[in-house]
Amino acid sequence: MIEPVLARIDADLNHAISRLFEFLRIPSVSTDPAYKKGCDRAADWLVNDLRSLGFHAEKLPTPGHPMVVANCGTSGDEGMPHLLFYGHYDVQPVDPLELWDRDPFDPELQDTPTGQVIRGRGSSDDKGQLMTFLEACRAWKSVHGTLPVRLTLFFEGEEESGSPSLIPFLRDHADALTADLALICDTGLFADRVPIIVTRLRGLISEELTIKGPSKDLHSGMYGGPAMNPARVLARVLASLHDADGRVTVPGFYDGVENLPADIARQWQELDFDHSAFLGGVGLAEPAGEAARAPLEQLWSRPTCEINGLWSGYTGDGFKTVLPAQASAKVSFRLVGHQDPETIRANFHALVRAMLPPDCEVEFTSHANSAAAEMETDHPGFEQARKALAEEWGVEAAFGGCGGSIPVAGYFKSILGMNTMLIGFARDNDQVHSPNEKYDLECFQKGIRSWVRILAAMAP
Amino acid sequence: MIEPVLARIDADLNHAISRLFEFLRIPSVSTDPAYKKGCDRAADWLVNDLRSLGFHAEKLPTPGHPMVVANCGTSGDEGMPHLLFYGHYDVQPVDPLELWDRDPFDPELQDTPTGQVIRGRGSSDDKGQLMTFLEACRAWKSVHGTLPVRLTLFFEGEEESGSPSLIPFLRDHADALTADLALICDTGLFADRVPIIVTRLRGLISEELTIKGPSKDLHSGMYGGPAMNPARVLARVLASLHDADGRVTVPGFYDGVENLPADIARQWQELDFDHSAFLGGVGLAEPAGEAARAPLEQLWSRPTCEINGLWSGYTGDGFKTVLPAQASAKVSFRLVGHQDPETIRANFHALVRAMLPPDCEVEFTSHANSAAAEMETDHPGFEQARKALAEEWGVEAAFGGCGGSIPVAGYFKSILGMNTMLIGFARDNDQVHSPNEKYDLECFQKGIRSWVRILAAMAP
Repeated sequence: MIEPVLARIDADLNHAISRLFEFLRIPSVSTDPAYKKGCDRAADWLVNDLRSLGFHAEKLPTPGHPMVVANCGTSGDEGMPHLLFYGHYDVQPVDPLELWDRDPFDPELQDTPTGQVIRGRGSSDDKGQLMTFLEACRAWKSVHGTLPVRLTLFFEGEEESGSPSLIPFLRDHADALTADLALICDTGLFADRVPIIVTRLRGLISEELTIKGPSKDLHSGMYGGPAMNPARVLARVLASLHDADGRVTVPGFYDGVENLPADIARQWQELDFDHSAFLGGVGLAEPAGEAARAPLEQLWSRPTCEINGLWSGYTGDGFKTVLPAQASAKVSFRLVGHQDPETIRANFHALVRAMLPPDCEVEFTSHANSAAAEMETDHPGFEQARKALAEEWGVEAAFGGCGGSIPVAGYFKSILGMNTMLIGFARDNDQVHSPNEKYDLECFQKGIRSWVRILAAMAP
Repeated sequence: MIEPVLARIDADLNHAISRLFEFLRIPSVSTDPAYKKGCDRAADWLVNDLRSLGFHAEKLPTPGHPMVVANCGTSGDEGMPHLLFYGHYDVQPVDPLELWDRDPFDPELQDTPTGQVIRGRGSSDDKGQLMTFLEACRAWKSVHGTLPVRLTLFFEGEEESGSPSLIPFLRDHADALTADLALICDTGLFADRVPIIVTRLRGLISEELTIKGPSKDLHSGMYGGPAMNPARVLARVLASLHDADGRVTVPGFYDGVENLPADIARQWQELDFDHSAFLGGVGLAEPAGEAARAPLEQLWSRPTCEINGLWSGYTGDGFKTVLPAQASAKVSFRLVGHQDPETIRANFHALVRAMLPPDCEVEFTSHANSAAAEMETDHPGFEQARKALAEEWGVEAAFGGCGGSIPVAGYFKSILGMNTMLIGFARDNDQVHSPNEKYDLECFQKGIRSWVRILAAMAP
């Protein structure tokens, strides 16, 4: 049943590339108001393409960029599983433009020592990835006339600018968007070759703190000694956030953090994570996280605390003997399991306040604040997809984690009560969010084929 | 013998102010090449004024701004003490100009609730202060015809830009500049009313360090956990520089630091330092230095370590989940007694290196590096000046310290083998180096009178 569809994909690949190029040529940078029309055109492009596939598709307005919602309309069979596919048509800004080898919105197929790549902004994140799913639908329909599952498609145009319209939109359209299971194609392969279904997304607390001491910058000769230096206090606070074993010291931090289930632990062990290569790629050698945890566990299933920014006093060339009036840091926590962001934030604030000497005070600014999301994998689709992926890629697929945050999957769970299978085909060197973004042609083609296998596996 | 001179000063005060205003109108900003001519004109102004006083005065070129050297020529009497008076005719830049209430180079006498002030750049630092000495000489000569001591005067035009020509000039003109004792008028009153002879100048080591980890900035979600964060290492390093009692932990740091001699300790106790007012003026309350030391001791005779600058990762608005590739700090040490800058610098470097985890390295940039200077006060001029100052100000004067660095006094000692009496009449609120610099008219007048009393006391 799927062989003719897979053959069709391979035969039609050049056309699929042309369609993706058309989509990539639309400059849909969501953060920059100058590209507002580009975002609108990208939404229109999707609506038109979906309609050409026989979907009932609509562009729906929001206070920001529009959403696109489509469904296949042929949902006669109530026995079919109902799937929601999510992707985003907006792309990252392109600056610094001078670091691009070509116009970011003039995509090209390029030969490289490791194979052909599609070069251009959005080629991987997320236009190229979302098109793997659309092309899979196209091939299936062209061979069989109808799809083997009920499908709703949902595309956002604000993912790269914090999704301000997403939560109200999900609430307002909960009926239309709630399915048995969601699919998202916005993640990557493991070690460039192993397909992963991401079932664990770390949450994120991000906090800014400013420790204030003297009412103004002082001369370190005139005041150094008797006057409290807030940079010294900040250093003490930040140094206290980890113990000697790399564990985070915020009281109650590990409440709600559970050990890996045995079957997942086994899958991860079999992935045989080459942490030397992973760290070696960025100039490091030694895993630096919790001493008692394997590097992959540190990355996918353990919470962290990181200093993301630091500033105080004089930071220019040369030297100024200033005793700074204040010192600031940006600190974030990645969360897993059932860690409660509000409790951890409160305990972090209390820890900092408890370390302040009499003459210092602290101001906090809270930024992102999201709990971790862990998918319940008891829907049969998870195991079906895992087997389907193994067939396409020739290697056992695993339920994995994702060190970063993909908030939409959390919202699907918290607002729509729906689990998500995050399956993506990006590679670590795709340069998403950076100049010269690319998507390997192999990933595009095998990505399309993967979805066909997954849809077939999930069909009744 | 001095009463008519003092009377002459009081009677001539308006003319002295006019002369100072003339000098202040010359924009002699040494750091800014645009003011090169201003510096030259200020040197010429001094030469002319000194010649009008009967001094043999010369402007001597350097690779930077010129030096002015003068002597009174009437040095027939070998029994007279020979004094070198040093000052600097260059001034700080005036920016931010918009914070000035009037043109910084258009000086004015202003009424304030606490008395009349001379407002303008350099009114205190150092044109106003150095003119107290010239006016004292003028008054003395106009009454008595000749001065009661042998005098050499030495004015620099690069003090506010790091004195690049000073050391070679002192070496080249050692014979002309070496006297029994040096006088410098570039310091302040204690608590705005007690005259101080500064005999202890803290030295300074200033160091910049950059701790490097990953080869580039990383995504804290993708790498957070296994990847070492250099900002975390920097925080640990900086937090380790002081122990719980506020003592600096660099090995051997206190070698060469001696306790105060009993007579100095007594003088300082009698100064009755109001540390609450001192710290209260900058929004602080609790002395934060070494727990076992009184605040004035912390300031004048104890070494310190301060963080002067700090930067790493993302420091703009909002939040970026970056795991920074490097983290930097500027750190300085104030030195006292016989602390050896080279040893302390080496021990500091070793301490930092010993704290580095396997994947981090550190780069140091060394800036200033000067030992402390302590004057030997056995020359009778020290006690004579202390008594003379007490007569003018009506309160016992003390041998004090200076938290900041006045390198020239150290060079007089190390290059010319000459001790210095640092006597100045500035007040803490003079806003030197800041907009709206001022010098209290009372300080100017009583400063001139003080020098007359000191010269008289030192005369044979």
